[in-house]
Parts: sequence; structure tokens; C-alpha cells
Amino acid sequence: MYRSHTNGALRLANVNEEVTLAGWVQKVRDKGFMIWIDLRDRYGITQLIFDEERTDLSVLEDAKKLGREFVVQIKGTVIERQSKNSNIPTGEIEILVSELTILNASKTPPFTIEDETDGGEELRMKYRYLDIRRNPVKNNLIFRSKVTQAVRNYLSSDGFIEVETPYLIKSTPEGARDFVVPSRMNEGQFYALPQSPQTFKQLLMVGGMDKYFQIVKCFRDEDLRADRQPEFTQIDCEMAFIEQEDILNVFEGMTRHLLKEINGVEVGDFPRMTYDDAMKKYGNDKPDIRFGMEFAEMNEVTQHKDFGVFNNAELVVGIAVPGGNSNTRKEIDNIIKWIKRPQVGALGMIYSRCNDDGSFKSSVDKFYDQEDLAKWAEITGAKQGDLVCVLSGDTNKVRAQMSALRMELAERLGLRDPKVFAPLWVIDFPLLELDEETGNYHAMHHPFTSPKPGQLELLATNPGEVKANAYDLVLNGNEIGGGSIRIHDKQIQATMLKHLGFSDEEAKAQFGFLMDAFEYGAPPHGGLAFGLDRLVSILGGQETIRDFIAFPKNNSGRDVMIDAPSPLDDAQLTELSLKLNLNK
Amino acid sequence: MYRSHTNGALRLANVNEEVTLAGWVQKVRDKGFMIWIDLRDRYGITQLIFDEERTDLSVLEDAKKLGREFVVQIKGTVIERQSKNSNIPTGEIEILVSELTILNASKTPPFTIEDETDGGEELRMKYRYLDIRRNPVKNNLIFRSKVTQAVRNYLSSDGFIEVETPYLIKSTPEGARDFVVPSRMNEGQFYALPQSPQTFKQLLMVGGMDKYFQIVKCFRDEDLRADRQPEFTQIDCEMAFIEQEDILNVFEGMTRHLLKEINGVEVGDFPRMTYDDAMKKYGNDKPDIRFGMEFAEMNEVTQHKDFGVFNNAELVVGIAVPGGNSNTRKEIDNIIKWIKRPQVGALGMIYSRCNDDGSFKSSVDKFYDQEDLAKWAEITGAKQGDLVCVLSGDTNKVRAQMSALRMELAERLGLRDPKVFAPLWVIDFPLLELDEETGNYHAMHHPFTSPKPGQLELLATNPGEVKANAYDLVLNGNEIGGGSIRIHDKQIQATMLKHLGFSDEEAKAQFGFLMDAFEYGAPPHGGLAFGLDRLVSILGGQETIRDFIAFPKNNSGRDVMIDAPSPLDDAQLTELSLKLNLNK
Repeated sequence: MYRSHTNGALRLANVNEEVTLAGWVQKVRDKGFMIWIDLRDRYGITQLIFDEERTDLSVLEDAKKLGREFVVQIKGTVIERQSKNSNIPTGEIEILVSELTILNASKTPPFTIEDETDGGEELRMKYRYLDIRRNPVKNNLIFRSKVTQAVRNYLSSDGFIEVETPYLIKSTPEGARDFVVPSRMNEGQFYALPQSPQTFKQLLMVGGMDKYFQIVKCFRDEDLRADRQPEFTQIDCEMAFIEQEDILNVFEGMTRHLLKEINGVEVGDFPRMTYDDAMKKYGNDKPDIRFGMEFAEMNEVTQHKDFGVFNNAELVVGIAVPGGNSNTRKEIDNIIKWIKRPQVGALGMIYSRCNDDGSFKSSVDKFYDQEDLAKWAEITGAKQGDLVCVLSGDTNKVRAQMSALRMELAERLGLRDPKVFAPLWVIDFPLLELDEETGNYHAMHHPFTSPKPGQLELLATNPGEVKANAYDLVLNGNEIGGGSIRIHDKQIQATMLKHLGFSDEEAKAQFGFLMDAFEYGAPPHGGLAFGLDRLVSILGGQETIRDFIAFPKNNSGRDVMIDAPSPLDDAQLTELSLKLNLNK
Repeated sequence: MYRSHTNGALRLANVNEEVTLAGWVQKVRDKGFMIWIDLRDRYGITQLIFDEERTDLSVLEDAKKLGREFVVQIKGTVIERQSKNSNIPTGEIEILVSELTILNASKTPPFTIEDETDGGEELRMKYRYLDIRRNPVKNNLIFRSKVTQAVRNYLSSDGFIEVETPYLIKSTPEGARDFVVPSRMNEGQFYALPQSPQTFKQLLMVGGMDKYFQIVKCFRDEDLRADRQPEFTQIDCEMAFIEQEDILNVFEGMTRHLLKEINGVEVGDFPRMTYDDAMKKYGNDKPDIRFGMEFAEMNEVTQHKDFGVFNNAELVVGIAVPGGNSNTRKEIDNIIKWIKRPQVGALGMIYSRCNDDGSFKSSVDKFYDQEDLAKWAEITGAKQGDLVCVLSGDTNKVRAQMSALRMELAERLGLRDPKVFAPLWVIDFPLLELDEETGNYHAMHHPFTSPKPGQLELLATNPGEVKANAYDLVLNGNEIGGGSIRIHDKQIQATMLKHLGFSDEEAKAQFGFLMDAFEYGAPPHGGLAFGLDRLVSILGGQETIRDFIAFPKNNSGRDVMIDAPSPLDDAQLTELSLKLNLNK
């Protein structure tokens, strides 16, 4: 027994007890004749006291040798503190130490093990095992464990069965590259790591499993962007004999349960919005609806004058920024500078101030009179004291720009409160998406998504218009989950793959097993997958996923702590029937 | 809504209700004027009835078209059955069908979807999605889900935190080959898939996480034996500030909880046995103690006569087979034939019949008199009516042979009752194991296992004698878990790696990150990992793991359903900076 109690356990009621504690030295205060040490473990901090009068001299001497992060075991008596610390649960007591054992020494850590550390991102990742000792990271990992356990209990008690699907599988084209694994036993052949268990969960439905879930690692070999990991975790779910409505209800229930159990927040029915509406009103398929600033389409109220910029635009769109008239000219110029950054790419912004006296002052007063500007205010819903911001251009581009502006302004206005939760279903996604570079359509969700009833015919004539039985769950401007009703008919699946550019041979080679399965009594089915990393970080009130992952990789896909990936030796390559081909 | 009820739900109390059901056609009995159909889903079977008098003719006609495994939806009225079936929970009612919709047709399945199927192993694997519809497989998967959920709830409520460790890691030499994953972004470099999360869980302990668990996939690229999978699942656990005793207690508690919750079996304190005793008494480090037949070492009572076979043997060892004297001469010859099979490899077997009159009759009466044979009976614990079986030879070999014989005879005697659970801790494993081919020692558990206190010195002089703080949990003759107290001191770890043949450079390259971590205040720690596939199959009363895995691979590591692994195209290889090297 290394300890009788953890460092978060002792209270006034324990005074006079003999205890054994173990942990890390958080802090040493050495007054010469008296030493206090904060002893830390996962559970908290307990103050130790050594003094000349009451502590054996040799123990006191040993205590003087302790440095930060030394691991020690102590025996002692719980006593009441003279000056209590109400900030920690053990703050009313301290331990008068009688025995001290150093279990392990520590070099000086490369950064401070404090809530606010002096360590930079790279150092923290290299010494992640020290970073995890810090409360913010430790608490995030414990929080993640709590969320996953809540998910499992909810789904299990709703009759879902967790089934493990294999990791060594076959290529599944879901829009990204597969990581592959050479097979030594099957020369020249490769497994792929799953981008998701999509085909397997559909096969489980064909297999009658009915309600499936799995919390599972998935892998995508993509060029990494900030906050994206090559391996990530999904809450993967599938149901049979259901319609879209059933799925939305089940997972709305689960999400509502999590918000209540984890965050203590009660949320009513989740609003639903079509993809088309979301794009129109927010320029975005994952709108943050914690705040307003909905888009107003302003072509009618702007294209009747001589202002060529608007007249030539496919779309003129505006938002009303609440209280935005308080911005100085310089501040507005800064906003304009912000939207002109290459990441946003707008060419400029027109604005109209809504003065407190009911008058307007715009950056295009030359073209638009007070009556025009009153219409701008009306159509965007701007009140006195607000600022109307207007962008124009090609519809898709200008919506994306306005969406970025809306989010940026909301951020600046403090409207994105992490304690407020605004879930939203976005439904009726398009089935296909045009790749502007190649001119080809590809599946927006994945090739197994079912078109809306009766729309299959449109595939040949107007593929971009076909809507899918596909839906996303959005929380605070983040897509936390997405799914669809699947195709369960072999012919429809074949037609779909043809439209996506698969030859019959390719379709058979990649998905023959699934289409074969559809011939043996496949039930109607559909599902949804949550991005766990993202879900946990949003529930935890944070925007970045990295600190909710114990051992994340950096933007080059490297684990800088263990220094992976790394070269293989030649013997191992030969055994795998491979050679490097570096000068490609 | 595809259904108002599942096919396991309806009872007499539901009579006269209008219901909607969906499922698979299990069986059609067509009497012409009347048709019965068994409709099946995950939850059970409900009988449908169509008849000329009460069913619309067109519905009756449609029903005649249904074949096995068609997926249908019906509406109808719950009525009381004329002839009740007490074998199924819905056996008192049937549904008088008013509407029938065929949701999907089915080709005739390649094997029957019945508890006892006519499908062979290979066919079942190729059409695993049909195999999963069968109760035995379906129930095994549901059982597995129940076991994992019970494990998670137990550990979570005991303060363990489930932490996900990465899958794209670095080579960890745990006695098997790694599967590797080429990195496209880091040219010429490879990740390895984890053989276990060993180093990461140790780093979590250094990180203060204290009580960790994870149910996690692990990967070993081994030449497959029957019932071994390239990917398998572990319940992986680690604790800090603990001694061996603490770990044994925690996981004994968990296992006892599972036996009670899952199997309804109450088990007392688990017995403990040293590795040396297990080898001596059972010839095996995972003895099945559901039955006796313990080994008796018989050198003293056999090596005083002129029987050279025994006199020249390092070990003479016997067991008493209860009631074994009832075997005919021919049956005993069969046993002897069995142990001479190359898989067992004994050269022969000596036996002594313990007659009911107290006399003995042995196969070596030429050498041993009644007094000798009485001693054999005494030392093996044989009673009248038993059979003493004796093997001799080199200690290790003869123990393995006798162990095989003991298990085989127990099987034949029906002593291996899958409903009886006999757990056992085997402790004090040797730290190192001699590789008889190379003459080198390697770690029996893994290189991070701590030697027993005070035995480190023996490493240089007598490495085979060093005992480790290592333990296995054995259940009914299967190792279901194993673990150890780890080294947490950099110097000891360095010494250990040196003894295992790692150069300083190799040690640094492979484990530098772990040894560095040990310099920053590593706490004493240790843990254990359960093999989930095995654990679940034993709790489920079965010996093979394959039917507790949704999509297992065959003995060549292939998934015959999806046909993986498979070749990559050249572009993908080039992108990964690889070339095939097939003519090695």
C-alpha cells in the first residue's frame, strides 16, 4: 500500500488520523526551520508540513533535498491548518510528516506544471507525459472519458449493441486517401485502415443487428490542417427499419441527454433547417445559431441604381451588426481589411450606419439615398445604432465571405458564448457536389447515401439538384455529427456508382461484397456518426480538439514525443516485399 | 415508422391490437387456403397468418410469392393462436395480416439461417452478414457487447479513466512483428500499429493519470495459428502507486463481478500459485484447476529398479486418472497412440491399473512389484478403480506431454464443464526465458517488467533464475489476463535492456522517450491486460474466439467477405514512395 488516501481526500474530520500519502512535489516553501510542501496527484493537492520542533531532524533534512516533481511517499498525522486555504477541498488540514521516502527523483521539468504553463505547444507535445499532469489537460481527458461513458450507457440502455468492426480492411473511398498496411502473408497486397466503418455497419444491418454503435478510431491520410488529426474517433451508429425521422429523434435524444448530464443544460426540441435555407441565411451548412445576423438578400433593394459593383453581382447580401454603429471609421476600415485577407478574399465591403436619429450614413451615399438605405435596414432587420454590412459577388463565394464575416463579428461581440448550446439539424443536403476543378460530381456524403424518394431520375438530367436523405447535427457552428438513409437496393446502388464515375469493374472490385449483400434481404437502414473529438471539445467549452486527445500528432502527422513515424530497416522491408522508391 | 413492435414483443395481452411489424421471412408454410409465415428480427419471431376467409385475396397472393429471407413489412391484428407454441415468447399469439409490403427480395441464401446451419466455415465467413442473422452468432455478439459494457461500468465506477492511445505509433518489440503503415507525408518513414498500448499506458502513469483503462484493438503480424487473429482486443489497464497485491485485488474483483453479473456464478477468493508450482503440478503455466489429476514426481519411487527408460530420465511423472481402470486394453492403447502423435510427441506411456481388490497390474510388471506399484498409487493419489499414467524424459518436454495428456483425459471424462468457473492467479513468473534455438534470453513478459526486489543482481550470473513481479490470470485452463509491476527507474530499465541484448543506441532509438520520461518523476506502477476475445468466449462457455468476433479473418489473415488484403495501384504506391519487391 503506497497510500492510505489520495491527495484530494482529507478533511477536518480526519484530524489526528495517521495517514500515508504519495504523489508529486508541486511546490516547496522552505523557511529553514519550517518547510511546506504541496503534494499533488490526480485527485488534488495536500499540504505537508515539516518543522524543527515536531519533525525528526533527518526527515527535515531529506525534505530540503526535494525538488519540483519528485515522487515521494510520506507518513504523518492530519492536523488542522493555522491559515486555511478555501480554494482547495483539502485546504483546512495539513499533514505533519513523520516519515519521508523518495520514490523517484525528477530533473527540473522543461516547463512549469501549472494551470497556466510557460511551455510552448511544441515543448508540451514533446513532453506530453508532463503536460498531462497539468489540470487543464488532465481534466479534459477525464471529461472525455465521462462523455464516452455517458454515450455508451445511453445507447446501451436504448438497445444499441456495440460491435467491433475490423481495422485491417479494404480501401473505402470516402473522399480522402486511405492509410494502407502491407500484408507480409499475402505478398504484394495491402490492407487499408478504415476511414470509417461505413460498409461494415451496413453489413451489420443486413445481418439483422438492427441497432449498432461503436466508439471507434478512424484514419484519413489527408494533408493536415490545423486541428485535424490523421487518426480520430467516431461515435458510429446505424439502425435498420427506420426512416430519417426515427434517426433524428434517437440522436437528438442522445445529444439532449449529454447536454443535461454533462453540462447541466436543458435544451428543447432541436430546430431543423434545410441545407438550402442554411446556405441562404448563414452562407454555411453548419450555422452557429447562438446569435442572429441572418443574411438578407439585397439584389432587389440595391440593383436599381447606378452602382456597377452591385449591379454586376450575382448576389448582394447584407447583415445587420447589432450596435455596430458604435464602430469608428478606423474600426470599420479594420473590418474591411479583415475580409480582404486572402483567407476570406472579399474585394471590399459596403456599409450603412443606422444613426440614433433614424438617419443613415453609408459608404455609397453617392448612389443610394435615405429611402434606399431605409430599405437596407428594413430588409436586414437593422435597428438604430446598428451597422449594415453588405457584400456582393458570385453567390457561393459571397456567401462564404459573409459567413466568415458574421462569425468574426460575433466573436468580437462576444456572442459565441461557450456556455450556451444551440443545436440544429441541417437536412436535405444535396446528394452530389460539383468539383469545380474537374467538373465532375462526387458524393457529398458518401456513395451509399440514398436520394430523396422520386429524385433518382434527376440524376441523369440535373444531378446538382438531387437532394439526399442526409442530415448533419450542428452545435454552435460546428458539425458534430452527420449521416444519411442508405441505399439498400442493389440496382439503385449500381446506378449511383455509375453516376459517380465508377466503371462496373471498379464498382464490383470495391463494393461487390456490399452489393452482393443487398441481394440477400437488405432492410431499409440509415445512421449517423458523431466526431467524438469535436463533440467533446465543444461540450467542454473549447474550440480546439488537441487538448482532448491524450497523445495528438502535429500538423505533419508526427508524434514528436515518441518520434514516429520512423524508418524501417531493410530486412523488415524485404519481409514485406517492399522497396523504398524515394526519388520519384 | 416501419414497425410498431419488434418480433419479440407481442403477448396475449396485445390481442386485438393493430400492429405494424417488419423483418425477415424465416419460414413459409403454404397450405393453399392458408399461409403461415415466421417473421424474424433481432428480437425474436412472430407468426403471421394469411387465410382465404379473413385475408384480402391480393394480400394472400402476394404472400405466396415470398421466399426465405425476404424483407417485409406487414400490418395486421394480434389474435390468439389456436395451437400455442411454448418454445417462443410470442407463441401464444399470431398476426392476422391485412397489408403486406415487400421491402426487399432475397436470393436463396447459400446456407440455412437456422441455429444449426448447413453452411461450412468458409461459406459462413464469405457471407458473414447472413451468418450474423443466426441466433448463435447474433447472441455471441450481443453477449460480447454486454461483457464490455459491464467491464466499463465496473472500472469507471472504481475511478478508472478510459483514455484512447494512438494507433499510428512506433515499433514496440513485444515478441511479435509489427504491422506497419507507410507515411506519405514523411517520405520513407513508417508508423507501426500497436501490439499493445504498453508504452503509452506507462507514460499515462508518469503523467499522473493513476488509474487507466482502455478496451482497444491490438495488432500482431504473426504466422497465424488456429484461433489467433492478426487484430484482437485487449482490456488494457494500468495503475500507479500500487504493489502487485493491489492489482491482483482490483482485477480479481472485476473478474468476480463479471462472473456474477454475466454468468450468475459466485466465486470465492481466487487461489494463487507460483509459476514453479504450476509447472510442477500441472506442467503448464495456465492450469485448468476445475479438476484434479495433479502431477506426482515419481523419480524416487521408480528409479531404484532395472527399468532403463525411467532410470535415464530427468523426470518421471505420473497422474491418477479417476475411474481409469475401466478402460479396456484397447482404449489404453488408443491413449498411448494419442500421446505419440507428433503434436504431443511422447515416446510411450507406462501405466498401472489400480484394481478394485487392491492389487495392481502395470505395463512394467517385469520391473516393478506390487509394493512398488502401491507407492505409485500413493504418490499420485490413485484409488481403487483408477489408472496411473506415467511419462518420463527431459523435464520440460515430459511436463508438456503430461499436461496435454491430462487435458485430453479430462475432456474425455467430461471434467471440463463450461458452466464451472475456476479462476487462478499464477504469480512469480521468471523474468527471462531462454530461446533454445539462439541460446539468448528474452523477456518472458516484456522488457518493462520489474524483477523481484533484490534479484537484479542475479541477472548477470544466473538470468534464468530471476523472478519477475509478473502474474497471469487463468480461467479454466486459459490465460485470460496477464501483467506485471513495471520498472520505473531509468537505470534499472537500461540494465534490463542491456541484458536483453539491446545496444545503448538501439535502446535509445526505441525507448529513449520512455527512459527520458522516467527521469521526470515516474511513480511506481503496474498493470494488466485481459484478452477480451478469449475472456468473452470463456464466459460464453465456448472455446473458440471466432464466433465472438463480428468479422474475423481466416488463417491466412484474409477477410474472405470483403476480399482483403488486395493489391494497390501503382499511383498509390508511388505516392507512398514505395515499390513492390516481389522476387526476393
